[in-house]
Amino acid sequence: MKQNQRYSVLFEPVKIGPVTTKNRFYQVPHCSGLGHLRPQAEAAMRSVKAQGGWGVVSTQESEIHPSSDISPFITQRIWDKRDIPALRLITDAVHTHGALAAIELVHNGYHSTNHYSRTPPLGPTNMSVDAIYPKQARKISKVDIVEFRRWHRQAALNAKAAGFDIIYVYAGHSMTLAHHFMLPELNTRNDEYGGSLENRVRLTRELLEETKDAVGDTCGIAFRFAVDELKGKDGMQSHEEGRAVVELLSELPDVWDVNISDWPNDSLSTRFEPNEGYQIPYIEFVKKITTKPVVSVGRLSSPDLMISLIKRNIVDLIGAARPSIADPYLPNKIKEGRTDEIRECIGCNICVSCDMLAIPIRCTQNPTMGEEWRHGWHPEKIKAKKTEQSALVVGSGPAGLECSMQLARRGYQVILSETNDFLGGRVQFESSLKGLSAWARVSDNRVHEIQQKANIDIYKRSTVTQELIDELDINNIFIATGCHWRNDGIGRSNRYGITGLSSVNAFTPTDVLNQQDSLGESIVIYDDDQGYLAGVIADHLSSAGHNITFVTPASVVSPWTEHTLELERIQTTLLNQGVNIILNKTLVHAREGSVDARCVYTQRVSQIPCKTLVLVTERFPETTLYEQLMASTKGGSLDKQRHIELIGDALVPGLIADAIYSGHLAAENFEIPEIEIERALYMREMPSLK
Amino acid sequence: MKQNQRYSVLFEPVKIGPVTTKNRFYQVPHCSGLGHLRPQAEAAMRSVKAQGGWGVVSTQESEIHPSSDISPFITQRIWDKRDIPALRLITDAVHTHGALAAIELVHNGYHSTNHYSRTPPLGPTNMSVDAIYPKQARKISKVDIVEFRRWHRQAALNAKAAGFDIIYVYAGHSMTLAHHFMLPELNTRNDEYGGSLENRVRLTRELLEETKDAVGDTCGIAFRFAVDELKGKDGMQSHEEGRAVVELLSELPDVWDVNISDWPNDSLSTRFEPNEGYQIPYIEFVKKITTKPVVSVGRLSSPDLMISLIKRNIVDLIGAARPSIADPYLPNKIKEGRTDEIRECIGCNICVSCDMLAIPIRCTQNPTMGEEWRHGWHPEKIKAKKTEQSALVVGSGPAGLECSMQLARRGYQVILSETNDFLGGRVQFESSLKGLSAWARVSDNRVHEIQQKANIDIYKRSTVTQELIDELDINNIFIATGCHWRNDGIGRSNRYGITGLSSVNAFTPTDVLNQQDSLGESIVIYDDDQGYLAGVIADHLSSAGHNITFVTPASVVSPWTEHTLELERIQTTLLNQGVNIILNKTLVHAREGSVDARCVYTQRVSQIPCKTLVLVTERFPETTLYEQLMASTKGGSLDKQRHIELIGDALVPGLIADAIYSGHLAAENFEIPEIEIERALYMREMPSLK
Repeated sequence: MKQNQRYSVLFEPVKIGPVTTKNRFYQVPHCSGLGHLRPQAEAAMRSVKAQGGWGVVSTQESEIHPSSDISPFITQRIWDKRDIPALRLITDAVHTHGALAAIELVHNGYHSTNHYSRTPPLGPTNMSVDAIYPKQARKISKVDIVEFRRWHRQAALNAKAAGFDIIYVYAGHSMTLAHHFMLPELNTRNDEYGGSLENRVRLTRELLEETKDAVGDTCGIAFRFAVDELKGKDGMQSHEEGRAVVELLSELPDVWDVNISDWPNDSLSTRFEPNEGYQIPYIEFVKKITTKPVVSVGRLSSPDLMISLIKRNIVDLIGAARPSIADPYLPNKIKEGRTDEIRECIGCNICVSCDMLAIPIRCTQNPTMGEEWRHGWHPEKIKAKKTEQSALVVGSGPAGLECSMQLARRGYQVILSETNDFLGGRVQFESSLKGLSAWARVSDNRVHEIQQKANIDIYKRSTVTQELIDELDINNIFIATGCHWRNDGIGRSNRYGITGLSSVNAFTPTDVLNQQDSLGESIVIYDDDQGYLAGVIADHLSSAGHNITFVTPASVVSPWTEHTLELERIQTTLLNQGVNIILNKTLVHAREGSVDARCVYTQRVSQIPCKTLVLVTERFPETTLYEQLMASTKGGSLDKQRHIELIGDALVPGLIADAIYSGHLAAENFEIPEIEIERALYMREMPSLK
Repeated sequence: MKQNQRYSVLFEPVKIGPVTTKNRFYQVPHCSGLGHLRPQAEAAMRSVKAQGGWGVVSTQESEIHPSSDISPFITQRIWDKRDIPALRLITDAVHTHGALAAIELVHNGYHSTNHYSRTPPLGPTNMSVDAIYPKQARKISKVDIVEFRRWHRQAALNAKAAGFDIIYVYAGHSMTLAHHFMLPELNTRNDEYGGSLENRVRLTRELLEETKDAVGDTCGIAFRFAVDELKGKDGMQSHEEGRAVVELLSELPDVWDVNISDWPNDSLSTRFEPNEGYQIPYIEFVKKITTKPVVSVGRLSSPDLMISLIKRNIVDLIGAARPSIADPYLPNKIKEGRTDEIRECIGCNICVSCDMLAIPIRCTQNPTMGEEWRHGWHPEKIKAKKTEQSALVVGSGPAGLECSMQLARRGYQVILSETNDFLGGRVQFESSLKGLSAWARVSDNRVHEIQQKANIDIYKRSTVTQELIDELDINNIFIATGCHWRNDGIGRSNRYGITGLSSVNAFTPTDVLNQQDSLGESIVIYDDDQGYLAGVIADHLSSAGHNITFVTPASVVSPWTEHTLELERIQTTLLNQGVNIILNKTLVHAREGSVDARCVYTQRVSQIPCKTLVLVTERFPETTLYEQLMASTKGGSLDKQRHIELIGDALVPGLIADAIYSGHLAAENFEIPEIEIERALYMREMPSLK
């Protein structure tokens, strides 16, 4: 492949202590929900990153000891030598493709609840564990600090034995013992590990020195450090102690991996921070202090910004977690001048939500993420068509776009039909809402590719009917007709619906946006979906000047967004915009000028003023065409003459990520024997019985 | 062992289809947090139940297909034949001890989010999944019902191949597809599976018939059915459709396992239902309808109640989940007339909380629960002493009681010293609070045993000092001095404390109970612990007639109690008692007559009237004696002359379950080589890499 000279600076090697990365692309540690529970899946996922051109591929945080057990969350583990074989799968896979393998050693301090190991959590001082659990951490004694350092050193030796090239000391995200020691809010010790900053940094310094001593002959020593907590004077700030820490330790690590803390600040969603490179203002001082290479992050996907960061001497290495998930081939695409093919991270934090839920990672943009082992999927490659077939995909929402794009990649002749005069379906709607404009990339990336493919024909403003299909004699039909929001109030908290809805102006989420200039007074948004959408609409409409009352059976607005790290910012935003939030209430009846709301605990009913009611409760899959086709096809889905398949929200409403996955799955499985499809469905890693 | 004739009726065999249980003790299915992830631990745990005399030992719910995947929660799985070896570990272990092995097949319907398998969730109709996730279940088609029945049949055949004697069809807890079909609130179908009760029961009938057909020649077919949802007319009621279901299916199963739904109703804590046998009023009709044996539950621990239930013809088999966790040897103890040795379940639902957290099961009363494989612990047996040693245990809270009891069991000479004139420590305090009286069993059981042991001397009203220890020349000292509540407001949300506390009457939880008759007006309970205690105190004081304002940084009262299934009842109780609940606020400053509360989202400060302030924030371990001893002992804990060990809340404040575990661990590990102790700490089941 030809290399694009414009970006050649990104492909310069960089020395990291005794090792050298072939280029500046550095996949920083990120969680995956695979880790110690699913070692083969973990290795396969990291392998694809290495194939995609990343110079450094890191593990997620790797617990060095049972006292750093954050069960049920799924980390990597390097408790003892028995972890080496699983880790070796990762390093072998990464090395095969010419990348360096890095491991992030961690002790989670008081962030560990030790629910599995049941050993006392450890903190810089006696304090509650960092979880809603009535259990505390013990102030680690000086004797225990010696032990702790021994665990860390042994883990570094084991990591070297497992083949890692770069070994991390980790003081970030307010999640590690070394970091906890640094923060004066948490460290109230009066021994030589507390008090002055030098004392609070002592533990980190010891870890850096001892790791270097143990493995620094052949391994680079990375130091991940959060320079700012975004708490103002109540926390560490990059222009004060954050800077002082870098000064104290400047030449000790072989590479500085710097970011901001805690995790919701580091992994900001586009909803609350649309710009990439948002961490630069905090970390740009670092390179002025140290001569060692610096890596940082901030949803970096744009090659031009990357070059600018290098040329302006802000970083030496382009760090990425989420962009490497959305597009594992980001480096190769830049190298080959295929920048228009980059699948940009949309910053939705679905990847993060998987860690929060202790389930395998997935990605809205990249449906193959986490599926490399189970399905054998690849973000850039897909199996060729089996026979000469053509296929019709009805609907151009996320499922329809992904399905038609992948069918076309496989080599099939594809017709994509859409009733609207735009492509994208729900993505078009949702990305028009406040904060979600980056979500449009889901359709932009796919439409861009589809438009260049010779074997795919797009028909907009086109209504597919059974007659048309019969007439055209199309045998393979993928129905991605999406779903629509219910307007009867039926939802998870009320399966009988809201009575009397004719007394108010009731809208669905899509309706209300079309009517937003003519909405009356007393607008109530009712959220029984409890995902993200109702909160976004409340934000959108209140920003547009409407007075909004938000009613939900949940005890917070948009409870699911705890998993995307957005929950706090959502509450803050709505409260600051003056939204009237009424929690723990199920709507049961509407009357002239008000709605009856029943307390989920006491069952007492009260009235809330309401003339306009937006119902965000549940969705109906749109399956009319599917049912017509099935009814007219003898033998239903078992019919061998026609392949008729529901995909995306028309099959089952979910996240955009679910729709993309569904479209991808259908395209991958087309013309594949049922037995092979079943095998993937049952695939899992199982415990050894020995 | 001699058999006690009084209880002989409990030891009669009962025929369950083609198999016969040796007695009436029936461990019904209950979750364990071990399951498919930890098969060896699961088998070891069930094995101890069989050893303890249970006639039937059941698995937890066992997913029959990837579309019934409730990841991250840890179930048993019987997806396909590859699960048989792990299941065989269970049946072999259970059979070795003469019990029957039962398996609860399950399809979780719309309760499955399928976060691992990513296949569409299935429900009786299109509806949101039964989890806070913006994803829906798909109305299962008639074609898919045929498939579903095939999965169930195949799972039954696989279960038989794995050696199970009893195979369940499961329609309970509002958690299974068969149950979802029965409930008119959820089943809005208009085909032959919806509408009339007969139609709604059709799926269950088919499962029962087909399971019997597949494996009924050698296996008993159990049917677990929830007769009442405790929703009144909005749900199934035992005197209406619940009864009608039993009439429709009366002779089809070989045994009826009946309870109430959903899980928070079935597994009521003693806090909200102190009486055992609380399900009897709902299920007693069942035996009047069917000739088949009936098993039911309701925290049954009392042998006299058991006999009464049999003699009154209410049940044939004594079902137990939680009582079998608290005391796996319940049957044997009754058989041998050792009923005073029964370790009664306290109904705290810590066992349940483990399933909710997707971590291995534990039990407040039985610290060996879940530790049978990892530690090799046994609820009734413990390794004998290594040498002739005596030990001093300082403090008779849960850790001190358990530690001294187990040291005495091992054969050591033990002195138990307590400063108060009562034994039990925090258990004494907490069990004096409203709803928690059953928690006193934690100390009652242990004190009862200790008092009968010749090798343990108890000293109440006794203060242990360093001088006394030096004088007595005691070499082994276990320090269980507990902890005390902070009175400065420092806690998880505010590490700098509340300023100005001298302006109000500030109390800790223990203080306030001593002063409850002289408390003034404007009482604020501030909960930054966010466990259970502050909510209990609010309940206690408001029941006693005090006007209470409850302030917490959390968004609900006692958020942790979601895991013990008590959260909803707590909110309802406090609201009904008129407690003024102020959420999402951190207290920062106290002044004459009010406290300053800062919104956790907007940071805005408001005033709350307050003259009396109860601070439930965080605890200080009481380590004065420990530190004195360590300071006077050369070389600290590394000193070989004396064994000085902190245990329980003095080591690290936690749950009572944590304190019991800590005391048990210390007793088990005394005089055990460090290398063996380490081995247990690192023990875990790991994935096969093949």
